[in-house]
Amino acid sequence: MSRMSMAKSVLAGDRLALSRLLTQIENNTTLGHNVMDELFAHTGRAHLVGVTGAPGTGKSSLVNRLALHYRSPPDGGSPMRVAIVAVDPTSPFTGGAVLGDRIRMRDLAGDDGVFIRSMATRGALGGLARTTSRMVEVFDAAGYNLIFIETVGAGQVEVDIARLAHTTVVIDAPGLGDDVQAIKAGILEIADILVVNKADRPGAEQTLRALKQMMNLAHPTRKEFQHHGLAPVNSTAPADDKNDRGGGDDKNELFWFPPIVSTVATEGEGVAELAGLIEKHRRFLDQTGEGRRRDRARLESGLEEAIRNRLMGEWRAKADPLQVERIIQDLSKRSITPAEALTGLLGDAEEQT
Amino acid sequence: MSRMSMAKSVLAGDRLALSRLLTQIENNTTLGHNVMDELFAHTGRAHLVGVTGAPGTGKSSLVNRLALHYRSPPDGGSPMRVAIVAVDPTSPFTGGAVLGDRIRMRDLAGDDGVFIRSMATRGALGGLARTTSRMVEVFDAAGYNLIFIETVGAGQVEVDIARLAHTTVVIDAPGLGDDVQAIKAGILEIADILVVNKADRPGAEQTLRALKQMMNLAHPTRKEFQHHGLAPVNSTAPADDKNDRGGGDDKNELFWFPPIVSTVATEGEGVAELAGLIEKHRRFLDQTGEGRRRDRARLESGLEEAIRNRLMGEWRAKADPLQVERIIQDLSKRSITPAEALTGLLGDAEEQT
Repeated sequence: MSRMSMAKSVLAGDRLALSRLLTQIENNTTLGHNVMDELFAHTGRAHLVGVTGAPGTGKSSLVNRLALHYRSPPDGGSPMRVAIVAVDPTSPFTGGAVLGDRIRMRDLAGDDGVFIRSMATRGALGGLARTTSRMVEVFDAAGYNLIFIETVGAGQVEVDIARLAHTTVVIDAPGLGDDVQAIKAGILEIADILVVNKADRPGAEQTLRALKQMMNLAHPTRKEFQHHGLAPVNSTAPADDKNDRGGGDDKNELFWFPPIVSTVATEGEGVAELAGLIEKHRRFLDQTGEGRRRDRARLESGLEEAIRNRLMGEWRAKADPLQVERIIQDLSKRSITPAEALTGLLGDAEEQT
Repeated sequence: MSRMSMAKSVLAGDRLALSRLLTQIENNTTLGHNVMDELFAHTGRAHLVGVTGAPGTGKSSLVNRLALHYRSPPDGGSPMRVAIVAVDPTSPFTGGAVLGDRIRMRDLAGDDGVFIRSMATRGALGGLARTTSRMVEVFDAAGYNLIFIETVGAGQVEVDIARLAHTTVVIDAPGLGDDVQAIKAGILEIADILVVNKADRPGAEQTLRALKQMMNLAHPTRKEFQHHGLAPVNSTAPADDKNDRGGGDDKNELFWFPPIVSTVATEGEGVAELAGLIEKHRRFLDQTGEGRRRDRARLESGLEEAIRNRLMGEWRAKADPLQVERIIQDLSKRSITPAEALTGLLGDAEEQT
């Protein structure tokens, strides 16, 4: 399929062309890059929602339920088109990612307004966060209004991926082990909305209390908005009817304190409320310009990576392979230092700049 | 402290200087880089052991026990100097990493031959794997014979860090949840030695059986050695008295099939056996040249990153900030494509190379 026809088919809503393009993106092919470039003008419309949390919190079930909610809005509104990118830390040899798709498919099968794509983390060429970002752009161009990026939320890569999103939902659940609690702490900082899932289980109240306490300690996250000089920041947090504080309100709020919502994904409880908070955060991003700032930051970091790759490629094309090999051997023997190796390959730093 | 005196103090075994240098490395300072360069000639002697596993497997306890073992070898040999770099996915605001150090300190406190450093993953500037690699080099230069790199083993970054090591130990335990099982699958591929910890718990036999089965499925890992053309590969796996197969033997083995050992870290059970397997793997790396290959790969990837950073820095120094800003704004407005942005900043790709 040619670059132009693939781009046109994706824009026309062809699911097979979309699926093929996603594979090109995952394999980091030139065709994939070219079609992406073609589609770029059609991006920037979707709302990107990162969903992350420690193992065992029930992320997939909750994302599934959210997708069902947006497909049949209880208030009778028109259904939204939903895409899910599931980033699973499973190995290709276990086939985990493929199995995951099949399980999800039972609930959402046959619905043309939903597209689910699992990504095996080990198979991603050219960087996991970058590949995920490109997949999200494809769905955006293909007219999906809501795109969920689901990660297991344990490592730095998962945090980077969550940062691609406009709205980041961090999921917690009662009854997880101590190690999992430690993992959780690292991702609370990036939360726009907090969820206590499995809220019908013993210990849910305790989990909720602990989360509220941690979020109060993390109060300085608010400085992020001061930091970027978007607007003056209110000195008091807004009250919210569902939580002690948080979630902004419908007026022009200038900062966002992450609200906490309890859910039971398997029963659909709390899902409508969570969807309401996601929508509230979307409006907050629109009103404060924070949404545009996050979009720009994502594009900027993509551009920087492209510049780095291009510069490195140009250097490689000019470099003398025998000299490079000799310098790496000297380095391995510890007969030169890393700084000397760099000078040997690129010349002295001061003279060049 | 000057660059020369800091390097000399570290080489002389000054713990305070070592601790200060590690902070410089963590903060990615110029002083840190310069001292590292000074110390580089003294690296390449330590045996680097990556220890990784899913949350709840008891990694820290096992690494603690291993350290105690090497400090008082039961066979009456001379004690080895042990460093532990613990990469914890905890947030600076919870203070998790600091607390972790205190708990470890109880067992190993006051022993000058042990140095433990926790790293808060979110605080690492300039890349977690790179920072860890530099810390390991510092310990290597400072004369630590065995350096453990402990990660939670859930994300790609953790896998990258484990790859810095000569020997990678992957820990499993009975009774973990399904989500944790999925995480585990992704890291089995990188294992040189497998451990079933908490082997006194119900389900340990089942975990052991499942691991053996997965490792047999993953048999193609052996091709790694063919791949790099080090030496001809035996067509049959060696027998081992402790496991069905694996672990090489004391003769010149040309490939390594990961052995599995059961431990109860809290009781010290199986720890001597695990230490024996680590030593066996060290000899295997020596004999096959695989150790030198892993060392070279690590240095090569460090050099490539330095080249990339230098090229990007030089480009930034020359670039016109107003032009860069204009192009990013056009990109944000979707009035140009990413490829057009790149051409605007760097010129046409074909002409330059």
